[in-house]
Amino acid sequence: MSEQARTTVPAGAPTIGFDIGGTNLRAAVVTPAGEIIDSRAVLTPATDVEMIDAIVGLVEALHADHPTVAAVGLAVAGFLDPECEIVRFAPHLPLVNYPLRAHLAERLDLPVRLEHDANSAAWGEYRFGAAQGAGTWVLFAVGTGIGAALMIDGRIYRGAYGTAPEFGHIQVVAGGRVCSCGKAGCLERYASGTALVETALELAATGVGAGGELHAALLADPAGVGGPRIVAAARAGDPLGVATLESFADWLGVGLSMVADLLDPELIVLAGGVSADSGLYLDRAGRKMGETIVGAGHRPLARLATADLGPQAGMIGVADLARH
Amino acid sequence: MSEQARTTVPAGAPTIGFDIGGTNLRAAVVTPAGEIIDSRAVLTPATDVEMIDAIVGLVEALHADHPTVAAVGLAVAGFLDPECEIVRFAPHLPLVNYPLRAHLAERLDLPVRLEHDANSAAWGEYRFGAAQGAGTWVLFAVGTGIGAALMIDGRIYRGAYGTAPEFGHIQVVAGGRVCSCGKAGCLERYASGTALVETALELAATGVGAGGELHAALLADPAGVGGPRIVAAARAGDPLGVATLESFADWLGVGLSMVADLLDPELIVLAGGVSADSGLYLDRAGRKMGETIVGAGHRPLARLATADLGPQAGMIGVADLARH
Repeated sequence: MSEQARTTVPAGAPTIGFDIGGTNLRAAVVTPAGEIIDSRAVLTPATDVEMIDAIVGLVEALHADHPTVAAVGLAVAGFLDPECEIVRFAPHLPLVNYPLRAHLAERLDLPVRLEHDANSAAWGEYRFGAAQGAGTWVLFAVGTGIGAALMIDGRIYRGAYGTAPEFGHIQVVAGGRVCSCGKAGCLERYASGTALVETALELAATGVGAGGELHAALLADPAGVGGPRIVAAARAGDPLGVATLESFADWLGVGLSMVADLLDPELIVLAGGVSADSGLYLDRAGRKMGETIVGAGHRPLARLATADLGPQAGMIGVADLARH
Repeated sequence: MSEQARTTVPAGAPTIGFDIGGTNLRAAVVTPAGEIIDSRAVLTPATDVEMIDAIVGLVEALHADHPTVAAVGLAVAGFLDPECEIVRFAPHLPLVNYPLRAHLAERLDLPVRLEHDANSAAWGEYRFGAAQGAGTWVLFAVGTGIGAALMIDGRIYRGAYGTAPEFGHIQVVAGGRVCSCGKAGCLERYASGTALVETALELAATGVGAGGELHAALLADPAGVGGPRIVAAARAGDPLGVATLESFADWLGVGLSMVADLLDPELIVLAGGVSADSGLYLDRAGRKMGETIVGAGHRPLARLATADLGPQAGMIGVADLARH
């Protein structure tokens, strides 16, 4: 791929955005207006070689159906170098110090752009979603884990080494729940989709919600109850479900107060899988944030909003980044 | 004061830098090269009116001795608005939503500039001290409490509402030591000069250092032992002093890992009163930081350095800011 090719994306052409997650490899054809007009998904491959082949295969298939596609962007759930060439480390992907952009550029006849997944989602929300027009703002994505991105006046903050703000593994409980990162008491273990199950089990063990349906289901088959079931129980008024979501909301509020204290944004956009149910908990999380910040009552508080683009934000954002 | 006056600081003229702290009100005459050529200090006044009078009095006295002084900068230990006009809230000062800059500008015949104290110190270290030439870097000031500032390519990061990054009151121990901010388990209660005493008392109660001098001194008069005494004991090899500094170093490392995870700087400059003894603990804190960050071993680590300008950094920095 020549440098010339990288800089000649026609204004009206669609581009392809990938979301390279730990479970699925998703791709979408996205218009310059941020609309998805086609998409594909496969399971995330287990090796780097298969990953390249799968991405190339999806691009070729989409390119065949959409011949005007003019660039490819890839949102990656992992650490990149600040130049967005190399995947340094990705806990759920078979890529370590892997020059993903160059390897793909060799195989594809299109410009290729790499970006961190939270940064990609932030760019999507900034261009087409809930953060349009925002100055200093933070995307706070809560799903399996926690991801975050900071934008300042239309630019993604990268730090010195390309690490997006990592809130998920800030220790909030010394000697707390064991985390897959090797530490304990990480925020992600209390305020994430996966944490819902752990919280429900802990509460159930103390008798909360005894007699209710969720309590019975957890006792009968602890491994069979996931986050969506707990959310549904909360929505239906099950006392264990409600108590679990309240705990989640309070810990999310602690996390949001950290965002406010450390980054002081005008807007925090809650994104990620859990955000689809934000109506259940966002008010309570916001109150907790307001109580937990430093200088409460003496400073303006960040506005809270829910993401507009849902799980497509990363693909839409990185497809747009690929044209620049 | 006219706008014209604010923009006509002669290149070679000295300026006055103030450090408005909870205990002392200090002022220095600073050359364009960042050298202090004169200084004064009084106790911090107890009311806003006395504060204005004290500042005006010090400026007039210094101006009389140094007639070429061309501007006044004030570093404030508190929250300012993003335009640096108003002191919103300062836990140790008699100023709430107080338009300090305008009130001083009315009384003084010199341009007046306000700035947060950590930002002022960061500017001083960036212009004349340990952070010269740094791109994305953080000043982490540890004294009575914790203050921090983030600079990006020569600019101070202000967030949306002017709050500098506040690490001191991030909760690191759920239900932990009670903090003056009204919360519990704040980082500042484990990694600050004042936390040293609390840690030493807790360790002494479990028998650490029994038979040693520091242990005996704490038992005899708990209120009479301060941070400097503990640091001196550690330096002399007293087992309780050493254990206390080790705990401090580990918690400081946890704090520094938060800085690395959240802001990803190339350089962290340790400043504040405690930094004078950094030789005792900085290596250990750096190791703890390296172990505690997300993706340890897979990403470059911020360089750690100790501040060059000591407790003068704020006055030197804000004096320099006052000329711009």
